[in-house]
Amino acid sequence: MTPTFAVAELLERCRIAINPALGEAVDRLTPDLRLIASYHFGWSDPSGQPTKAPSGKGVRSTLAILGAEASWAQSEVGIPGGVAVELVHNFSLIHDDIIDTDAERHHRPTVWSEFGVGPAIVAGDALAVLAHQVLLESSPERGPAASRALAEATAMMIAGQADDIAFEKRRDVSVEQCTAMSAAKTGALLGCASSIGAILAGAPDAAVRALHDFGLHLGLAFQAVDDLLGIWGDPLTTGKPSGNDLRQRKKSLPVVAALAAAGPEADELRSLLLGEPGETLGPLQADQVDRARYLVEACGGREWTTVRAKANLDSALGALERVRLSALPHRDLADLAVYIVERDF
Amino acid sequence: MTPTFAVAELLERCRIAINPALGEAVDRLTPDLRLIASYHFGWSDPSGQPTKAPSGKGVRSTLAILGAEASWAQSEVGIPGGVAVELVHNFSLIHDDIIDTDAERHHRPTVWSEFGVGPAIVAGDALAVLAHQVLLESSPERGPAASRALAEATAMMIAGQADDIAFEKRRDVSVEQCTAMSAAKTGALLGCASSIGAILAGAPDAAVRALHDFGLHLGLAFQAVDDLLGIWGDPLTTGKPSGNDLRQRKKSLPVVAALAAAGPEADELRSLLLGEPGETLGPLQADQVDRARYLVEACGGREWTTVRAKANLDSALGALERVRLSALPHRDLADLAVYIVERDF
Repeated sequence: MTPTFAVAELLERCRIAINPALGEAVDRLTPDLRLIASYHFGWSDPSGQPTKAPSGKGVRSTLAILGAEASWAQSEVGIPGGVAVELVHNFSLIHDDIIDTDAERHHRPTVWSEFGVGPAIVAGDALAVLAHQVLLESSPERGPAASRALAEATAMMIAGQADDIAFEKRRDVSVEQCTAMSAAKTGALLGCASSIGAILAGAPDAAVRALHDFGLHLGLAFQAVDDLLGIWGDPLTTGKPSGNDLRQRKKSLPVVAALAAAGPEADELRSLLLGEPGETLGPLQADQVDRARYLVEACGGREWTTVRAKANLDSALGALERVRLSALPHRDLADLAVYIVERDF
Repeated sequence: MTPTFAVAELLERCRIAINPALGEAVDRLTPDLRLIASYHFGWSDPSGQPTKAPSGKGVRSTLAILGAEASWAQSEVGIPGGVAVELVHNFSLIHDDIIDTDAERHHRPTVWSEFGVGPAIVAGDALAVLAHQVLLESSPERGPAASRALAEATAMMIAGQADDIAFEKRRDVSVEQCTAMSAAKTGALLGCASSIGAILAGAPDAAVRALHDFGLHLGLAFQAVDDLLGIWGDPLTTGKPSGNDLRQRKKSLPVVAALAAAGPEADELRSLLLGEPGETLGPLQADQVDRARYLVEACGGREWTTVRAKANLDSALGALERVRLSALPHRDLADLAVYIVERDF
């Protein structure tokens, strides 16, 4: 879905606010690491020549700036938080691409496939620690609390990633475990991104908590939509092969919800996706992907996940109503949430 | 070299002080990550059964405790610092073993070779962020400064690791560049380990700086000795094949110093180790290792590095004299430094 004009303008405004500070942070890295980071952010080609390659939308840094503005602070107050969450998010992307052996991101080779696994590990490590330096140097008064919130969110994200890896080998993942994993892997950092601006602005605890809950539920809604797109998404829009998650037998939310159902269709799905205990499983064939897609829907996995995405979006928007926030950024936060969740599904 | 009774007792005393807190920190990890960390620390086998496998000596946590004691604080004050530096040190070991494809450490499979590359990346990431959580939660007053010092040291260590990787491909590494790399890769974290206890104790800046310099020079001395052992060390003592660094054409200090010399022997060494520009180089053969070892010594690389190790040990001990420190821990720091540097070389 193309962002509405208002959301596109919002993302662009925040990108312009964040990029100089993000560039300044990356400039502190040693030359080899700076090159890798610049390449990853789409600022240069692998030889260091400036380019404007597509990169992320900067949702997390936008949330950080809006969190500060919603707490009646200048947007500048949120900038160290925005830089830090982008650094942590991109550290996790660089490492995740190694772990998942994904060779492309935004239609360019991923860092490990361009520079090698060793340099990619080190570059990710460098971004992670840089995030804390940025926060701890930002304000002696509020930087430490922001750094602590980011460390907690990062620890949750890493725990979620570890669970995600572990789930691949398990046959018995429950809907609750799957939800907890995605709350940790995606929700924790979005919760931190949404509240770190308020922390830096010295907002009351209730506002920090409300903004955190907003981001956490936004993350759960986002993950649910991502899981729907991984099965029913248009390859032209997602940039990934059709039914990619099914092909890889990924235990995404619709699949886990469908597997929890009873009846002959759920039995067929179980045998198709999980095989026999101890069996070594390769990727599904194209006709098996089609059959699995049908079965997940027939077992209610699509419906259940769609309802969940909507419920979490409602919870996110509801969290914003629990406290008094500055009106314009409040509306921006809500618009951004709706845009993120209401992609083509 | 077997530690003297006094140093062995010191390391054991600090291990007993640190291990419960280190175990408590590791217990906060998600089960899969906790298992990997316990295995890495030598506390359990790969299935989680308790063992007592050999692991590191705990030099860094001992330095952290001594730094607090030297600042007239209780050893407990240094414990969060000791836990944090051990966590960062071990995060770097787990990632370095992947980068260097080292399959064994302390005569056991390394984390990546036991659990896989993905889980090893994630486990390293988890220990790095846990270190900051431990510090930021330790004391609202002094934890942030300790966390900031650790973040700076970690950033230096990572930059040094990136340079080390880059040096492998370069023909023209100078002695200065090699020294700067080892100051960053080894010295920065030892500098932090030696001063973090003083930071947590609220010691004056001059004492923090003196202890930091002590650790930095100790790191440089340690690296010089390590480089000497990598060429002339006894395989029985080092646990690595004889002349391992030469076999891998590593640009360690003695090699770089020898390459900077003039004359036919330096020319022969250059051609043996660096080949022709653009040539793809495999490991050296056994007879080439022997010849290179002779040439490095003939070009003065051994003598130069030995002098450097001793000069840095002197600088380290000298740094301790710049400020007034509590006498007993001062002596312990000096004994530990001498023990670390005066291994069999």
